[in-house]
This record gives sequence, C-alpha cells and structure tokens, in this order.
Amino acid sequence: MFMHNKRLQYTVRVAEPNPKLACMLLEQFGGADGELAAAMRYFTQGLGEEDPGRKDMLLDIATEELSHLEVIGSIVAMLNKGARAQLSEAQQAEAELFAMVGQTGTSAKESILFGGGPALIDSAGVPWTAAYVDTRAEPTVDLRSNIAAESRAKIVYERLINITDDPGIKDALGFLMTREVAHQKSFEKALYSIENNFPPGKLPGIEEYANVYVNASQGEGDMQGPWNSGEQWDRIDDLEQAMPIDGSTGNASVDLPEADAQALSQMMARNASDPTQDPTTGAELGAGPGAGRIKDIAMKEL
Amino acid sequence: MFMHNKRLQYTVRVAEPNPKLACMLLEQFGGADGELAAAMRYFTQGLGEEDPGRKDMLLDIATEELSHLEVIGSIVAMLNKGARAQLSEAQQAEAELFAMVGQTGTSAKESILFGGGPALIDSAGVPWTAAYVDTRAEPTVDLRSNIAAESRAKIVYERLINITDDPGIKDALGFLMTREVAHQKSFEKALYSIENNFPPGKLPGIEEYANVYVNASQGEGDMQGPWNSGEQWDRIDDLEQAMPIDGSTGNASVDLPEADAQALSQMMARNASDPTQDPTTGAELGAGPGAGRIKDIAMKEL
Amino acid sequence: MFMHNKRLQYTVRVAEPNPKLACMLLEQFGGADGELAAAMRYFTQGLGEEDPGRKDMLLDIATEELSHLEVIGSIVAMLNKGARAQLSEAQQAEAELFAMVGQTGTSAKESILFGGGPALIDSAGVPWTAAYVDTRAEPTVDLRSNIAAESRAKIVYERLINITDDPGIKDALGFLMTREVAHQKSFEKALYSIENNFPPGKLPGIEEYANVYVNASQGEGDMQGPWNSGEQWDRIDDLEQAMPIDGSTGNASVDLPEADAQALSQMMARNASDPTQDPTTGAELGAGPGAGRIKDIAMKEL
Amino acid sequence: MFMHNKRLQYTVRVAEPNPKLACMLLEQFGGADGELAAAMRYFTQGLGEEDPGRKDMLLDIATEELSHLEVIGSIVAMLNKGARAQLSEAQQAEAELFAMVGQTGTSAKESILFGGGPALIDSAGVPWTAAYVDTRAEPTVDLRSNIAAESRAKIVYERLINITDDPGIKDALGFLMTREVAHQKSFEKALYSIENNFPPGKLPGIEEYANVYVNASQGEGDMQGPWNSGEQWDRIDDLEQAMPIDGSTGNASVDLPEADAQALSQMMARNASDPTQDPTTGAELGAGPGAGRIKDIAMKEL
Amino acid sequence: MFMHNKRLQYTVRVAEPNPKLACMLLEQFGGADGELAAAMRYFTQGLGEEDPGRKDMLLDIATEELSHLEVIGSIVAMLNKGARAQLSEAQQAEAELFAMVGQTGTSAKESILFGGGPALIDSAGVPWTAAYVDTRAEPTVDLRSNIAAESRAKIVYERLINITDDPGIKDALGFLMTREVAHQKSFEKALYSIENNFPPGKLPGIEEYANVYVNASQGEGDMQGPWNSGEQWDRIDDLEQAMPIDGSTGNASVDLPEADAQALSQMMARNASDPTQDPTTGAELGAGPGAGRIKDIAMKEL
Amino acid sequence: MFMHNKRLQYTVRVAEPNPKLACMLLEQFGGADGELAAAMRYFTQGLGEEDPGRKDMLLDIATEELSHLEVIGSIVAMLNKGARAQLSEAQQAEAELFAMVGQTGTSAKESILFGGGPALIDSAGVPWTAAYVDTRAEPTVDLRSNIAAESRAKIVYERLINITDDPGIKDALGFLMTREVAHQKSFEKALYSIENNFPPGKLPGIEEYANVYVNASQGEGDMQGPWNSGEQWDRIDDLEQAMPIDGSTGNASVDLPEADAQALSQMMARNASDPTQDPTTGAELGAGPGAGRIKDIAMKEL
Repeated sequence: MFMHNKRLQYTVRVAEPNPKLACMLLEQFGGADGELAAAMRYFTQGLGEEDPGRKDMLLDIATEELSHLEVIGSIVAMLNKGARAQLSEAQQAEAELFAMVGQTGTSAKESILFGGGPALIDSAGVPWTAAYVDTRAEPTVDLRSNIAAESRAKIVYERLINITDDPGIKDALGFLMTREVAHQKSFEKALYSIENNFPPGKLPGIEEYANVYVNASQGEGDMQGPWNSGEQWDRIDDLEQAMPIDGSTGNASVDLPEADAQALSQMMARNASDPTQDPTTGAELGAGPGAGRIKDIAMKEL
Repeated sequence: MFMHNKRLQYTVRVAEPNPKLACMLLEQFGGADGELAAAMRYFTQGLGEEDPGRKDMLLDIATEELSHLEVIGSIVAMLNKGARAQLSEAQQAEAELFAMVGQTGTSAKESILFGGGPALIDSAGVPWTAAYVDTRAEPTVDLRSNIAAESRAKIVYERLINITDDPGIKDALGFLMTREVAHQKSFEKALYSIENNFPPGKLPGIEEYANVYVNASQGEGDMQGPWNSGEQWDRIDDLEQAMPIDGSTGNASVDLPEADAQALSQMMARNASDPTQDPTTGAELGAGPGAGRIKDIAMKEL
Repeated sequence: MFMHNKRLQYTVRVAEPNPKLACMLLEQFGGADGELAAAMRYFTQGLGEEDPGRKDMLLDIATEELSHLEVIGSIVAMLNKGARAQLSEAQQAEAELFAMVGQTGTSAKESILFGGGPALIDSAGVPWTAAYVDTRAEPTVDLRSNIAAESRAKIVYERLINITDDPGIKDALGFLMTREVAHQKSFEKALYSIENNFPPGKLPGIEEYANVYVNASQGEGDMQGPWNSGEQWDRIDDLEQAMPIDGSTGNASVDLPEADAQALSQMMARNASDPTQDPTTGAELGAGPGAGRIKDIAMKEL
Repeated sequence: MFMHNKRLQYTVRVAEPNPKLACMLLEQFGGADGELAAAMRYFTQGLGEEDPGRKDMLLDIATEELSHLEVIGSIVAMLNKGARAQLSEAQQAEAELFAMVGQTGTSAKESILFGGGPALIDSAGVPWTAAYVDTRAEPTVDLRSNIAAESRAKIVYERLINITDDPGIKDALGFLMTREVAHQKSFEKALYSIENNFPPGKLPGIEEYANVYVNASQGEGDMQGPWNSGEQWDRIDDLEQAMPIDGSTGNASVDLPEADAQALSQMMARNASDPTQDPTTGAELGAGPGAGRIKDIAMKEL
Repeated sequence: MFMHNKRLQYTVRVAEPNPKLACMLLEQFGGADGELAAAMRYFTQGLGEEDPGRKDMLLDIATEELSHLEVIGSIVAMLNKGARAQLSEAQQAEAELFAMVGQTGTSAKESILFGGGPALIDSAGVPWTAAYVDTRAEPTVDLRSNIAAESRAKIVYERLINITDDPGIKDALGFLMTREVAHQKSFEKALYSIENNFPPGKLPGIEEYANVYVNASQGEGDMQGPWNSGEQWDRIDDLEQAMPIDGSTGNASVDLPEADAQALSQMMARNASDPTQDPTTGAELGAGPGAGRIKDIAMKEL
Repeated sequence: MFMHNKRLQYTVRVAEPNPKLACMLLEQFGGADGELAAAMRYFTQGLGEEDPGRKDMLLDIATEELSHLEVIGSIVAMLNKGARAQLSEAQQAEAELFAMVGQTGTSAKESILFGGGPALIDSAGVPWTAAYVDTRAEPTVDLRSNIAAESRAKIVYERLINITDDPGIKDALGFLMTREVAHQKSFEKALYSIENNFPPGKLPGIEEYANVYVNASQGEGDMQGPWNSGEQWDRIDDLEQAMPIDGSTGNASVDLPEADAQALSQMMARNASDPTQDPTTGAELGAGPGAGRIKDIAMKEL
C-alpha cells in the first residue's frame, strides 16, 4: 500500500518561469526513459517477483521513482506557472500569448491542451506508452534491462543538466541523475547475486552456433576486436559458404495437406504474372500524350 | 549498402500448417523484442557511431538480425500457407473458415486484414513501434541496452521453444536463440573494451547521494542484501527524517514576475473552492427520490 | 514523497490459477479506465493544482489509486503464478503449454512476452497510453472528467464482477468498485464547492448560439425531450434554412498575398482535371481483354 | 444515412495565411478533445443506444460535430493555402521555404508530409487515436463522459480564442465554443432524465467502503472540505491501522495445484539470489583501474 | 454541412447474435482499411482540394463512407445486442458470461470495456489511428492512394464474406464491397482526367537513375520480367561495381566547424574502445564458478 | 540472407551541420512514407509471395530501400554530428546548448533523448509504427498500394528538395526521389502483368451497385465529370428516394433468443429516460445562485 507526504524528496527552487525548458524536462516525466517508465518497470517486476530480497528491492526503488516523478513534475509545474495563469486569464494581448504558446509544437500542446500542467508526454508531445516498459518476468533478464534503463536515464539527465543554467533546477537534476547511478549499482549487485546468471533463462545455447561471429558487413571499415576475433570466436568471413549456416538448402518449406495444396495452386494460377509480355500500364497512360515509351517518362519537364 | 541472397541463413522446415502458432511466433517478427527491433536498434547505433570497431560490429549484427527477421518471417509464412490459400479461394464452407480464422483476436486480424502474410504485429495484433528502440547515442549506455535486449530476446525464444513440438521449428528457434547469446557476448566485450564505462556519460554523480539506499517500501518483507546493505551503502530507513533529503523545506517554488503573479491570483480566486459548505451535487440529484443524504446512496438496490 | 508498505490495502485470496481471467482483469491494470489511468489523472492534476483543498484531495486519491493498482496487479500475479512457473521451467509437454498460453491472442502475449507477470496492457494486449489521461488544468473541467472517469471505472468493475465466480476475487473487485463510487462523490463535492462552475472556464458563450438545438438527424425516430425541446431551447428543424447559421455565404475564404495567389494559380493549372473527356484508366487496362466498357467490369466471373 | 451540403454550418473568413496558427488549431481537428473525437464518441453511442430519445439526441449531436470538424478543418485549410501552394510550386528560394515550414516540428510535418492540407493530428503532430473515445455503452456512464468531454472542448476553444487576433477566426471559434456549452446542457438534461442515475450501473456499492475517505497524502497541506470530511464521510487518517482495510493479512495468496507448486519451487531455486555475499559486478569492472570499491565510483572525474 | 437520416443506406438483417463475428467485422469499422479510414481519407482531401470537380467527388464519397460506417456499425450492434444485455443485467451465471466474453482477447475488451457497443478498434482490439490516413495534398498522389485503399477495402470485405454464413450480413457486406469497386472506378477516372499525372508532382526524375533496376536480391530465384528487364531498363547485376552508383567514394562526410571538430575528438577519445585487449565482462562474471572461458558458457546445463 | 558493405549506395556530402534540417529529413527515415516503411512493405510482401517473378522483384526493391534508409540516415547523422558532440561534451555554455536543442519540439527530443543519432521518428517526433505498412497479401491489391506508396514517397522527397540549399544533400535526395519513380514503374509493370487484375480479388461485385454514383454532397459546387456522370454511371441525385438503396426499411434488426430479449427489456427499463419532465441538472446547480433558468447560463459574465 502506498502513502504520500506532501514534502518532496528533494526541494525544488526555480528561478523564473520558462515554458520552453518545461517542455524539454517532460522527457523525464512522460518520456521513454522518464520516471514513470522507471517506476512502472520496477513496480510490475516487484508484483510478480518470488525472491523476497529482490521483491523488497524492486518495491523500494519503484516507490522512490514515483517520488522522482513528483520532483520532476513539480519543476515542470513551476516553470509553467506564469504561462498557465496568463493563458487562463487572458490578461495579455493575443499576439503575446500566441508567441508564448507557439515556440514549439510541443509548447502549443502543453499550453492549449494541457493548460500548462505537467502532462505525461515527452518533449515532442508524444503520450507516454507502456511499450517503454520491458519487464519480462525472468530476473536475470529484467535486472539487465534495469541496469540499461538506469544508464539511459542517467545520460538523459546529464544532457538536461548541460542545457540548463537555473541553479535550483541544475541542483535537483543532479540529485535525480545521481540516484540513477545508485539504482544501477543496486541492480548490478542483485544480478550478480544470482549464480549462473548467463546466459539468462534455463535453456543452454546450441554449441555450434554460440561462438560464431558473422562478419555480415564487409568492405572498407572491417575491424577486429575482442567482440569478433580471438580464440573465443569462430568467425565467418565467407558469407556465401555459410549460407545457410546449417549446410542444407536455405529454403523454407512446409508439408501442405492436399486440400491446402489445391487451394494454393488455384490461388497461384489466378494471380500468376506473365513475365513474357510488356504490358501497357497506368503510368504510361498517365505520362501524357507525347511520352513515347516509359524510359522517357521521368524526363518530362513542366 | 545492403545485398540479399534468397537462401536463408538457416533452413526452415515446417511439418504442417498451424496459423495459431504462427500468431505466437509474430512476437519475434513484429514484437517488442523481435528481430526488427534488434536490427533497427543496432542499425541506428551503427549509423551514428564514431568508433570504427564498434561501428563495424553494430553493422555486422544489424545485418544478421535482418537475416533472422527473414527466417522467423519465413516460418510464419509456411505456417500460414494453407490458411492463406483457403481463405483466398474460399473453397471451404464459411463455418470452417470462420473457425479457422477466429481462434484468437489476433488470428482473425492476421487472416482477414493481412491475408495470412507475415505482418509486423506482435502476438496480440499490436503494430510494431519504434518506441521499442532505445538507441541513445552514448556507447556505454547503448551497449548496456543491447546486452539487455539480447537477454530479453533469448528468453522469448526459450518460451517459444517450450510451446512448440514441430522439430523443424524448434531447430530454427534454437539457432535464433543461440545467436542472441552470441550477440550478447559481443556487446559485453565491446562494453568492457571502453575503459571507465561506469557510470555512463561524462558527468560524475553527486557524492552524498551516490551511495544512499532509500528503504521506501517497509513493513513485513523488508530484506537485506548487497544491493541495499553493507559498507558501500548509506541506508535510509527513517523516511520522515530524510524528507526532503536535502534538508530544506521539501516544497516547490518559483519566483514569478509581477504580471504572472497577478494573473495567478485572479485564476485562483476564480476557481476557489469553498471548503466550509456542503453543496448539493449532481450525484445527489441523480440518486433518486428517496435517497436522502449521500451516505445512503451506495446502498440502492435494484 | 511516496512511501510504501508491503501489506496491500485489501487482502487478495485467489482460489486457483486462471490465466484467461487474468488477461481480462488487465483491463483495470493497464486498460483505458484502469487504476494507472486513474492514479495518473489525479496525480498530474494534483501537481499543478493551486487550490490547497483540491490539491490535498487529488493527492489523497491519486495515492489510493496506486494502492488499487497494486491490488489488481496482485490478483493478476496470483492467477498467473502457476502458468508462469510451468512455462519458465517447461515441465509440461509442449502441447499442454501451447494450449495454456494460446487461449486468446492476449494470453499468448502475456505468457510469451511478459512471462506471466502483470503487464501494463489491456485485455486485448494493447499497451497503456497516456492518451487515456484527460487532465486539462482547469478545475471545473478536470473535476467533470474525474466524475466521468470514476463512473467508467465503476461499470468496468461491475462487468468483471459479473463474469467471476471466485469469491476472493469477487470480494476484492467489489471493494475496488465501491471505492470508485466514493471517489466520484468526493469529486462531485469538490466541483460544486466552486461557485459558478458552469460553463467551465472564463469566457461566456455567445448568446444566440447557446440555446440552439440543431436537429441534424431526422426521419423516423425523431424524438423530443428536455434535451432538445421546451422553452429553454431554440430548435432548428429546417436545416437548409440554417445553413449557415450565421446567415452569410457558408463559404470558407482567405485573403491571399499576391505571391501566394500566383503560386496557387499555377498549382491549380498544373493539377487541373479535365471533366469533359472520358479517359481510359488503369482499371480498364486491368479488367482483362474481353472487358468492354467499364460498366461490365464488376460482373467478371472467375 | 449521411448527406452533405457544401455550405458550412458557419461561414469562415480568414484574414491572412498563418501556418503556425493552423498547427495550433489542429488541436480541435485531430486532437484529443477535437471534433472528430466528439463526433465519434456520440456516433458510437448512438449506434448502440436502445432508448429512442437518447439515440435521436446522440445522432443529432454526432452529425453536428461532423459539421464542426468541417468548419475547423476549413479554417486550417485557409490558413495553409498560401504555404501549400508555395511549397508545391517552389517559387520561393529554398531558405524562405525552409523558414516557412520549419517554425515548429509540427509545421514541418504539416507541410512536408501533409502538404499543408488539414491532417488528423494534434498541435504536436501526434495522429488522432480512438483511445480518446471513451464510449462504454452504459448510458449513465456515457452521458457523464459526454458532459466532461464537452467541458474539455469548451476550455480548449477558449484557450485558442485567447491566442488569436484574426476576427473571422475568433468569431468562428466563439461559435464552436458556444455549441459545446449547448451540447453539455443537452447531455445534462438527458442524464437527469434517467431516474436513479447514481451510482451508475446496476450493482450497489459495499456499504462499509462507500463513505470512507482515505487520507493517503499527509503532512503539511492536509485540508478539510465536504469532499473528505463531515458526517457523510468516515475518514481514515491512521493509515497503518487501516492496512489492510479488510482487517486481514494484507497479503496476496493463491492455492496452487501440486504440479504448479513444484514448478514454482524449481523456478525459485534456479533464480535464487544469495543475499549474504557481496559479488563483484559489471559496474565495478567498468569503473576503471583505480576505482577501488563501488562507493568511490560515482566520484570519478573526467 | 452534414445532415443525417435515421434510415440506413442499406437495410441490415442479422439472423442471430454472434459476438465473435462482431469482433471480426470491427476490422471494417475501426480497422486499417475500414470505413472510418476511408471517410477521413476523402474528407481531409476534400477540405483541401482546389479543383472543383475533384472536391465535389471527394465530399460525395467521404459522405457515403460515413453512411457505410453506420451500416457496418449497425451490424456489429445487432450481433452484440444479446451479449450486451446479458452482461449488463447479469442474468446468467458467471461461468456462462465468462465463456461468452472470453472467446478471444478482443471479445473480452469489446464486452468488458465497451459493453458490447461498436468500438473504433480493429478485430484485435487495437484502437483506430489516423496513421492509417495517407492524405498528402497532391492530387496525383492522393488519387493513387485512394485507388489502393479501395482495393484493400474490397479484399477485406471479400474475406469477411467468405467466413460469414448469415445471409443478411453476407448481403450487406456484398453491397459494401461492391461500392468499394465503384469508388475505385471513380478515382481512376479522376486520376486520368489529369494530364501528365506521372510521375506525380512537379520535379522530373534524374535521367540516369530513372530506368535503372538494381538486382539487389540474387541467387537461386532470380527472375526476369517487364518490371526489371527489357529495353526500358538499365539493369545492374554486378552490385559491387555499382557501389556507390554515383561512382564516388560511397562515404558520408560533413564539414565540421572547428569547435564541433574539437568536441567530436574529445567525445571519441572519451568513448574509445581498445580492440587489442580481451577484457573480462559481466557475462563471464555471471557464467558461474566453473565456467572457464567464454566459449564454454553457452553449454551450461541446468 | 542479407549482406552489407560499408559503402553507401550513393555518396553523401553535407556542407555543414544543421540539426533543424536533420529533423525534417527524419520524415523519410522514420516517417509514414519513409524508407523503413518502404522496405518493410516490400519485404513482408516478398516473404509471403508465391509467384517467383514478383517475389524476386519485391526482395530486390526491399533490399534497395534498406540501402536508401542507410543513405538518408547517414545524411541525418552528418547534419547532427556537431550538435551531438557539443551536447555530449558540454563545451558550450548552457544557453547556447539550450538554443541549439530547442528550435522545435522535435529537435529537443532528437538531441536530449536520442543524443543526435538518427532515430526512427518522423519530423514531429512520432515513433515509426507498422500501422504505416499496408501489405494485404493479395497481389493485385498490394501492387496498387506499392504504386501509391512510391508516389507518396516521391512527393515527400520533392518537398524536401524544395527546402534544401545544400548541394550535396539536394543531390542525394534527387537520387532517392528518382528511385521512387523507377520503383513505381516496376510495380506498374508487375500489376499489369496479371491478367484480370480489376476488380482485385476473386469475388465479382454485385451488378446493380457497381456503377452507381451517389451524389451525397449537394448544393453549390456540384460538378460533373467522368468519375460520376456519363453512360457508365447510374447517378443518384435524389438521396431520399434511395434511402435505403435496397428499397427495404433501412432499419437494422436482429432476431434475439428469448433470454436475450428479456435481458434487453430489463436493461432498457433500468436505463429508460423520461422525456416528459424537465429535470434540474448539475449544470444548473453549477451555474451559480442568480442563474435562473438554464437559458441564461451561458451569458454569465465574469
């Protein structure tokens, strides 16, 4: 069960309104790597987790992320407070309000649809979607996703810090960024507390394909490193020879029951193309009276 | 530049048509952890990568994932081949076709909208979205996302293998699953080939918050482990005392210019609520003639 | 700042696993009227609210909705607990697992992608989207949206209760349904505590259009009621006469600068259609050798 | 059956082209509270409605909203008419066209993808989605949703009026805004013409939870009002005591069949974490040679 | 301006309720090729069209498609009428209702969320999105899109007819299917009434690339036809020789200002990978105590 | 199986960084008519195609479109290269970086979330969705969709060329635009190589409705052309007379089993509206003390 106290986890001091900056900060409110995504990632994992230690950790961090959602949302609310009141009360001339709300497509949506309140959209105005939440209910997988998600959130905060010169906001963003680092460390510890966490899941890989590196992109720029070369790798440079890798035909096939096979034959006959003729096409009809053959069509000048 | 050969990377042998299984396999064709997501994750990273070794690796693996997309799509096409022809040619009675296409909501969409061809939807019929692609253009972040994505893809293949008894499909899925393991190993090697890859990015964390663990979920079930306890952690169990963690007021504030402040006052006055009265509400109007006070409303029996 | 206790707000007792029912209950976890939508609706309103009484109420109810999200998610986790373990450990035959995960398109996604954990999707597998959150930052508008949202959530719980015979689940759903009624009552009281809450916002309507009822759908089935007839309405039955309602031309026009007007003329000339000829079309080309004129095309028999 | 006359319901006179304003007005064309959402909300309700009076009203208003969609779309078309022709005919220098289309991300999409035609996107370029339509097929619910939707649409029009100084547009927007007020009045009348419309649906609430107010957000800022205090409310301030509210354990449980229980045990054993060790993690590997223990990692300077 | 008459364009006679068929028919109500997509495609084109003849045609057909939306929605409403009442009034046992609503993931959403009313979702429960509407405001483009869209709608109706044995529904679907054929014919006539409609737009193609066919997929299965061979094509079979086709380097380059170049150097140095070492990775840490070198990891048995 | 060479299909030379132009070019990278949409449209068709000639062509063109995706993505990467490094290394003052990333809502997302790498979003920041891919697995339908898609892509490239003055970019866009023309020609040839390709599919239309033109939009602006008039059309101008077109009642009906009929009656009774009374509504409650009757409400002045 959740409880709430109206004090924030971190005090928010904003120097002056700035709706355009508010829109950028939405990236961490309703964006792909934002705090709602973080909270929901760990909360859904925590609900389904069977290991008591991990369950506790996941609920701890999910709850803290909700508090972060509140901090970033409060910064957005402060940055928009003046614009919200001005638009609501219409005390300025239309042209001034037009300029204020129209700096970007997002700022218009933020003002006109959301009235300047913090909205669960990203900096481009795209609504948050649970497609961002990659909980998969296998701990050695989910912990890796969490580690990655924390590192993504860290870098997004770093970029926001780089563009902000309001000291109070910089301060709060620094706190939030640092917490992502701390959470990443917790998830790392939890992952490595599971013995045999690689490869994830229960099924082993198939030995003959597990150490193969396929050099699928060739030409100038081909490089070597421990990720594709050395004794731990069986490297395939001759793609033609390894096509298919199982040494068979490389075709796809299915055994069709007779009725299906008959229907298929009929379908193929009905839609068969005749590759031996050169039919007149709609493009030729449309290329105009003097067009001649199709080769000349693209050259038409207007 | 891409080139293609019509042989598959792995031969596909399907024992018999099975449109319902085809829908499930779409999870790896047009689903969140499917092969298009993988290919596009590495391809977008590769296009922007400046380090020549990583660029080469990313383009190698992106290209191989496109070949996997082709393998899984070919399995789907084989499983649907009979159903597609039957529905197209309408040689069976309506009731049989109705049963065939209507096993799940997804199978109806697969047959009726997509005609049994492989579609970029997941097993529930949701179209693939680039919201699944978490490329962030910082290598120590992206490589962690890649490691996590490969582990997710591995477990989804494992689950599909568990529900399939067609030996040819099991075989091909085993190959695809194993390749995810191999790719994860490449990305791990690439991550650790960058010295100082943690924390990601350039900005260090703030020392006083970097080792704090906030025990935000308490009560029965509180646990200890290396992720929240021990000398590397400063653990906060008394939440009230750490609210806010910066020791200030925990409030959000902004300095408003005078014009904004005036508009805000007016907005607040216009929308002020009067907490001292108990107004009659629409709910009371709607609770029916004998409802009396609002406390009784929920008890209405029909 | 949020805090959490591992006890639920309402005890969850599930009689036996039932993954198919779990999928239906997702409607209230990750669905349009589910608890995340509710929590986020009130939370975003609360962050931006200036009136202290309403702010307190919104944060109270937002927090309780998060606890409801936890209750419904816990029911889902219990219903899936067996299926999750079976699929993870693959102790059953493939055919049994195939049947278990394949009852609906959603159940396949729930099992194969989400591993049986509670996921922020609805009963059809569509990810939750913040497009469901209709916070608009004007209290007399938002409170009406909240009243409506609570009534929607109430009816969805009622429908779920109607299809469930597990007494522990019925019990918990009854609690959750009742809380929506209670929240609706709070929002009603808050709305009517604002004097002059209708029409919402600051601008009055234009008198001559505010009481007009346009009888735009006519024919058999035309009815009268207090919503369209009586002294408070000016009713328009003769649509032709009220077209346009402002009595002018009913056209759309714009004054174009000269350069724009010239470009427009050129664009129109370039794309002008010639209505006086009957051109041969691609459809006629495609209708086959004996097709004759276009009128006969649709009659082709195969 | 629908019919159309080319005269608009309200005459549209636009003073001069303004593509940026056009983008903002898209909020009411293809936005969340726009006219398509309104038309489709009432149209889907009308198709399913059994009560003849309400059915008539819903089809009347749905039809009128389509006419409003046409009015707002015509304004957008007029505002874009010059830009559309300029871009199509490329009579200006590239730099001028670049500036014209590039004022916001939305204006670029409007010009380059949609060619300046009215598109079913909102002011940030997000495509309209039927997720905005909250028809639920229970009249006492749907009418409340309609009342709320009309109030949202009213306030969005009010905000657009506030930023526009073109008198013809202001005029038309005033008409459209006023019609939302009129529609809200119709829906209110229809709701209260149903006796016993609260709570919606057929099932009563559970008496002991229907009048409880949970003070879930506490601390400075706690307030009282008719929404949470007074004789109609049983107020819970001591959250610990009411956790869970049913007085039982507050745990979630399910009775698992033996086979499920065994699989669960195996799954738990396989993924068990060892909370007693402090494992070396990938983060420590990545923190660089001199990093020492994890506590120092965040302090790395670059 | 739109007007409506409550008579349908085509009489709907449904033999008996069938909620599962209703879900499939949603494909043409709220699906990608459904009637709303059609109506909105032509309506948005009509609003922006400058040619009077095409504008008239587009508004005619848009309006008729709205009438088709009403017909298909009415069929859905009839098929669901019993299920809706049963679920609403809960007169059957829970198990019966559970079976009724749970046939597919979609049917659950249709019943529980939408209460059996026609909803703007497709047969898999995915909400309609304006991403389906491909209006581009260039007539020779849009008319081609319309021709294609009508042909898609035709085939979807054909598939629905094939699975339905209710004669009244078959009848109505046949009418709707035939109208798509008629509309395609109108759009064909309109396209070819524009002289020089190919290539679309104003800019001619570049002569040297306009007739090139790139044989990018090679190997067994290479075929010839009028689409890639013959005198109108310059065919490239030797891909290496044509890489790049402009005969230059095939590289991407940009001239960076000095400050950018310096920042880039620093970024590259910070994130440089060292390809000469074989670092220990997280995967190796996680592969368990006896794992030895990475090559053996995939073979772990559990 | 796919292979890749690091040389591009067309050399990319960008004169100078320009992040704002980069955002616009995303329209062809992750937009509705962009290269990923094209590649996936033909790839999914190719996988399911049974005709060998068309299968070869579809895989050829799909593969080339992937190479185009790489070309356009490389342009985007070049245009962003400086901005990416500047933001990553934070060598400029915050205000400069703020200005750089904040030109549009999209540019902020491109920089802050995606770090300046090419992302699969459109010019407004909306993620690519497979809803853009209209593969339907019937060749005479899909080829028409391909023809339309190529013409859409052509016009979008034309618009981008019109706004760009960088000669290297103009050059590459000209190449890409021309290839769309060439592909359209291939698809036209393939369509007309199928005899009897109109109407698509197998079922003929119903004769009496196949040549009817419904003049559904009337009034000033009614026009005639070969698309609605002439001997091939049976034109309906008197809509009332053709309502319904089948000459029956124009009603929707279903035969309900007795139990359903009873439940329906109960549902109707429970939700019946009383059209004879004028109930007091929530709107009247909310209109304030002096509001009098509802007619005066809209006139309130503040």
